[in-house]
Amino acid sequence: DQTSHLICNGGKTLTMDTLNPQVKAVEYAVRGPIVIKAGEIEKYLEEGGTKPFSEVIKANIGDAHAMGQQPITFLRQVVALCTFPELMDSPSFPEDAKWRARRILQGCGGHSLGSYSASPGVECIRKDIAAYIEQRDEGVPSDWENIYLTTGASDGIMTILRLLVSGKDSSRTGVMIPIPQYPLYSAAISEMDAVQVNYYLDEDNCWALDINELYRAYQAAKLHCQPKVICIINPGNPTGQVQSKKCIEEVLHFAYEENLFVMSDEVYQDNVYTPDCQFHSFKKVLYEMGPEYFNSVELASFHSTSKGYTGECGFRGGYMEVINMDPEVKAQLVKLLSVRLCPPLAGQAAMDVIVNPPQPDEHSYKQFHQEKSSVLGALADKAKLTEQILNAVPGIKCNPVQGAMYAFPRIFIPPKAVEEAKALGMQPDMFYCLRLLEETGICVVPGSGFGQKDGTYHFRMTILPSIEKLKVLLGKVRDFHISFLKEYSALE
Amino acid sequence: DQTSHLICNGGKTLTMDTLNPQVKAVEYAVRGPIVIKAGEIEKYLEEGGTKPFSEVIKANIGDAHAMGQQPITFLRQVVALCTFPELMDSPSFPEDAKWRARRILQGCGGHSLGSYSASPGVECIRKDIAAYIEQRDEGVPSDWENIYLTTGASDGIMTILRLLVSGKDSSRTGVMIPIPQYPLYSAAISEMDAVQVNYYLDEDNCWALDINELYRAYQAAKLHCQPKVICIINPGNPTGQVQSKKCIEEVLHFAYEENLFVMSDEVYQDNVYTPDCQFHSFKKVLYEMGPEYFNSVELASFHSTSKGYTGECGFRGGYMEVINMDPEVKAQLVKLLSVRLCPPLAGQAAMDVIVNPPQPDEHSYKQFHQEKSSVLGALADKAKLTEQILNAVPGIKCNPVQGAMYAFPRIFIPPKAVEEAKALGMQPDMFYCLRLLEETGICVVPGSGFGQKDGTYHFRMTILPSIEKLKVLLGKVRDFHISFLKEYSALE
Ligand SMILES: Cc1ncc(COP(=O)(O)O)c(C=O)c1O
Ligand SMILES: Cc1ncc(COP(=O)(O)O)c(C=O)c1O
Repeated sequence: DQTSHLICNGGKTLTMDTLNPQVKAVEYAVRGPIVIKAGEIEKYLEEGGTKPFSEVIKANIGDAHAMGQQPITFLRQVVALCTFPELMDSPSFPEDAKWRARRILQGCGGHSLGSYSASPGVECIRKDIAAYIEQRDEGVPSDWENIYLTTGASDGIMTILRLLVSGKDSSRTGVMIPIPQYPLYSAAISEMDAVQVNYYLDEDNCWALDINELYRAYQAAKLHCQPKVICIINPGNPTGQVQSKKCIEEVLHFAYEENLFVMSDEVYQDNVYTPDCQFHSFKKVLYEMGPEYFNSVELASFHSTSKGYTGECGFRGGYMEVINMDPEVKAQLVKLLSVRLCPPLAGQAAMDVIVNPPQPDEHSYKQFHQEKSSVLGALADKAKLTEQILNAVPGIKCNPVQGAMYAFPRIFIPPKAVEEAKALGMQPDMFYCLRLLEETGICVVPGSGFGQKDGTYHFRMTILPSIEKLKVLLGKVRDFHISFLKEYSALE
Repeated sequence: DQTSHLICNGGKTLTMDTLNPQVKAVEYAVRGPIVIKAGEIEKYLEEGGTKPFSEVIKANIGDAHAMGQQPITFLRQVVALCTFPELMDSPSFPEDAKWRARRILQGCGGHSLGSYSASPGVECIRKDIAAYIEQRDEGVPSDWENIYLTTGASDGIMTILRLLVSGKDSSRTGVMIPIPQYPLYSAAISEMDAVQVNYYLDEDNCWALDINELYRAYQAAKLHCQPKVICIINPGNPTGQVQSKKCIEEVLHFAYEENLFVMSDEVYQDNVYTPDCQFHSFKKVLYEMGPEYFNSVELASFHSTSKGYTGECGFRGGYMEVINMDPEVKAQLVKLLSVRLCPPLAGQAAMDVIVNPPQPDEHSYKQFHQEKSSVLGALADKAKLTEQILNAVPGIKCNPVQGAMYAFPRIFIPPKAVEEAKALGMQPDMFYCLRLLEETGICVVPGSGFGQKDGTYHFRMTILPSIEKLKVLLGKVRDFHISFLKEYSALE
């Protein structure tokens, strides 16, 4: 009862028993227990402790700059000019950066990055984004009033889900997500007490989305909840898969037929590496399906400063484009955004540079272009290298990394190791990843954090370390895996 | 039924009927209908339309830079250096700014503001904040691991409430908030489906918190919900009141007795203007009440880059200090924060400057000190001026603006005007503010957006416009109010 409870927790109001149970249900593997462990080992090494390795290599999170990627000079110039406008007089800043900064500041209250913007973002930045989308999508119209700047894509995704999720018991909102998924989705679903409706991507077909599986998942879900929204991540995290136009058409047709709200997470739209793949935006494909589709399917798509060739995660910049939303609901969306006042202005400015980069006739074009190509070229090389080295290891099978920043190889875990993990109350792939970390210093995330078919095991690693470090990492993974198989006598 | 529904809304999935009802319930007056109207009038004027005034003066939101306040040079220098480290070589940046920027970057992954930080924030910034709090509170210990950087104070407040709010029906969490309040609180309570428990501040006593009223509100609430948390805003928004040490002791004693979690919103801690008032942090007062209190009351206090003398709203910087939180719950808090990855790094850097400003022996001290005093001096002058001019108007009564950035005068609205408003389905103070806007171009927020005793009417205005503009504004309010009283024949 209440009294004994007060006694045993020292009279605290907020305890594991009284905590919002939806918070308790949240899981977020990308920064989960294995990452906390990695941090502890790092500290231990710093303080002079010894391990069979000299450094922890963190391949757990898509954090490019942390892995040594250099910022795009032009982007930083514009943001620095906005931050400290006295630099407008400095001859070391190019004119094309200055005019962009001036334009952004003109859109800010008091011409300062220190004022709140309108909740959907600075108007001229919204307009630049709409223009960029029109160009990207080869003329498909984009209305700037459908653009909302966000605090990273995470914030946009949470906000749209917040609008959609409601109901209790069998009328709870079902949210369809791919498995494997980026765990922001499952975490948001837990936090909001929605129903997670899994559709499994087809590992045997390069992690492609299988439309029959969508129908299966939908029909099964309808028996116990109200599926209202389908989330797609393209290019995929953690899969690295890039969706074909035909597949996107099928998804949109399905959403149209079943009256589902579509959330397309396109934060990796600039990260496509294999020549036979191409990024197709859901919006453009919808347009090409004709006005019956384009004027009716409710679609929110998300972009971010964190990925692509900029990797500006710390700026927390992003936007969403929302089409076919009921105008009254749009007013509600703006109201909801206004409670948190606005997204960070430096992130908004960074987003503006991404959608409005130097043009061929501008001074900064050459350097910008070089820096961009060098980042994307290196990522393409590392994608290929990762796939090749992993696939040469017995008991590891890795689909091609067509895009995004991750490999999600399948790993064979011998039955004896599975048993040992279970005896420890651990997922077998968590057991595997913890051993990998402790023996080699390599930090990757177990597949169970993203979801996977029962009885299959994976880990997710980023391809972000420098090529030298990546080679070391992959070599260590190979050696570890082989000795792991040996230890549990699955080899020879 | 479902089919007819589909027909009448054009087949949309997300409509006012299907929208999360908790979102629908949210209200946020600071950016509500009157502000939207003000924006429309501004556009109309820009496009050459005519009105009885030439510009809209926005006194609706605490957005200092938008009102012309200049940024603190040193803060912007540090953030610009962090953004574009090439500037470290520039002789136009002072060494004291450079070493701070270098130190911040050393705490960032890859030494870049573009990497995600740990979810609670950059470690060295957390340490600087803890050191600052210890100094501010004259030696009361502060543990850096209790400090969490946030995306503005808004984000911190929402996050702590998210942990606390749970339950259904009569076990729903009750959140005690002052009336009038800053509407982030009521909005968050609606969004999370908690129970808003109002305690009324004492207008006749300069808006002081009355401890008997707290007990009354608490007892009444216990009959239909579980009050778990009390929120205090000190210095007050919208009241401008600064709490006495005795009052804070009483609140803390009450929280201790009733086992309530305390949230103290101290974003205006640097905004105290009247010589007889002083800011006392809840943490320090708790400490002085002795270890029985200091080691048990669960307290989260909030600060922000948006207010004070910096007014850096656009950076979305802030922090919270959380003491006596159950360690397991703390782990849950970190998990929740990690889903959104991290607060914006530029905001974290700005926060670092606020807690670690130039010292007397440093190069930038003089200019920093001048700029800071000039901002705070002007605010103090404007606080006094606002109170004086408003109190000279018949039918307006304004408590002293002791701190924060707002006046919340009580306005007499004649019965005939109240009737007319009601006939229009409008709150009388909304009716008043709309007329004020349409006739004078002055945008203030109706008291009903913050809460007020039934039958009393107020508006909230900021004291942020320049002194010249503020005089114009106050003169216009006076003339409007007098003619409004005349029109509804309450005068003469
Ligand atoms: C698929 C996907 N969506 C969204 C995000 C969120 O990124 P941010 O909030 O930094 O924009 C990420 C980050 O890794 C991601 O991989
Ligand atoms: C009392 C109070 N708390 C919190 C905030 C939130 O400010 P921010 O999120 O910009 O830090 C405000 C903003 O006006 C405020 O007045």
